[in-house]
Amino acid sequence: MSAGKLIGVGVGPGDPELMTLKAMRALGEADVIAHFAKAGHPSHSRAIAARHLRAEVSELPLLYPVTTELPKCSSFYRDAIRAFYDAAAAQIAAQLEAERVVAVICEGDPLFYGSYMHLHARLAPRFPTEIVAGVTGMSGSWSAAGMPIAQGDDVFTVLPATLPEHELARRLADADAAVVMKVGRHLPKLRRALDRSGRLHRAIYVERATMADAVMMPFTAKPDDEAPYFAVVLVPGWEGRP
Amino acid sequence: MSAGKLIGVGVGPGDPELMTLKAMRALGEADVIAHFAKAGHPSHSRAIAARHLRAEVSELPLLYPVTTELPKCSSFYRDAIRAFYDAAAAQIAAQLEAERVVAVICEGDPLFYGSYMHLHARLAPRFPTEIVAGVTGMSGSWSAAGMPIAQGDDVFTVLPATLPEHELARRLADADAAVVMKVGRHLPKLRRALDRSGRLHRAIYVERATMADAVMMPFTAKPDDEAPYFAVVLVPGWEGRP
Repeated sequence: MSAGKLIGVGVGPGDPELMTLKAMRALGEADVIAHFAKAGHPSHSRAIAARHLRAEVSELPLLYPVTTELPKCSSFYRDAIRAFYDAAAAQIAAQLEAERVVAVICEGDPLFYGSYMHLHARLAPRFPTEIVAGVTGMSGSWSAAGMPIAQGDDVFTVLPATLPEHELARRLADADAAVVMKVGRHLPKLRRALDRSGRLHRAIYVERATMADAVMMPFTAKPDDEAPYFAVVLVPGWEGRP
Repeated sequence: MSAGKLIGVGVGPGDPELMTLKAMRALGEADVIAHFAKAGHPSHSRAIAARHLRAEVSELPLLYPVTTELPKCSSFYRDAIRAFYDAAAAQIAAQLEAERVVAVICEGDPLFYGSYMHLHARLAPRFPTEIVAGVTGMSGSWSAAGMPIAQGDDVFTVLPATLPEHELARRLADADAAVVMKVGRHLPKLRRALDRSGRLHRAIYVERATMADAVMMPFTAKPDDEAPYFAVVLVPGWEGRP
């Protein structure tokens, strides 16, 4: 008797070649492939993994009811997203109870700022689980830029661009190296925070780093304030190079 | 006429299955495989990649003259390590000038706290380079522990255990989630800093996460003060789960 198993599979930052051998094996072994997407949009993680999906595999799309349109602090957002994760976990639990292996494919690394962990927290107490670590989006970014990010005893930090300007500036100044995520409409504020923290001259702006249409430039060369939600800014450390 | 090329190849945190397809392809295409090791010890990165090396490939071991035996602030350490990287870069430059493709295999991700970046900084201005991003050791750690590390708008930070106790405590308290690296002989100090920052109850101690002899436990369950240099401590964030 084979038991059901939940596998969180990191498929890396975008380039399908940055999938691991273990991720490929998990996709080959899974009975069901689940993936998150915004309703009406293709799933990014499915696009990355597409060439490795078995033709006969069963797919379970998990469609976010809301994404960036609502403020995250609103109770409406929190209630909607909680209900969504509850329902998604219930759908997957039904598959696991039927003793199927369910692979949830995740951009980047499943347990680093990913949606998968909401399912994991709900299902790991009841079912066997496995995590396949993946290359993160930020590793993809600094690798594509050819930019060493942190070395030796550097303090490295990851900051969401949603923080208030003074908090961004304080934390940028307090770290040797940083990555700022979720840039989007926060770009003008981030520009001011980089300037206040003395980090503007080091900062690099990156979109879709590992894809054919990647955009990379020194932040100071960015001519406008437009940025997609998933753009990142790299602030390399490594001041004391031997 | 084919030109020489330097490739920094991340081979992931230890489990050979956590290598990427791109890393495998790079190993297949390289004329020379270079790897760092402590003199008299096998190379960790070579052990990870061993099954994917071509039988006839040429190997270039790069043996550190000093590692953790000397304080990093000493001028002797800095001079020795600088001379070592200069000599290693010169050896690789000779191969690149002979139009060979040289892959430097790196544990984890090449540009995230790796030795490769010392070669990259010396050679990238003169030769074509490419980086193959890898799964970091810390992703391997939280994945093996099945522990979501950061979510949503969490601030995440990476701290070397070499920091003074008050700095460790301040920075642990100031971040939502953290990974402390290079634990080794700093474990007693780290224990006090975790306690002072209110993070001790959340902390998880991890050694060799993705290997068969992995050690993982709540930090509070660690019965002694012994830890290898490469042990890490995870402090998961994600306080406001929806």
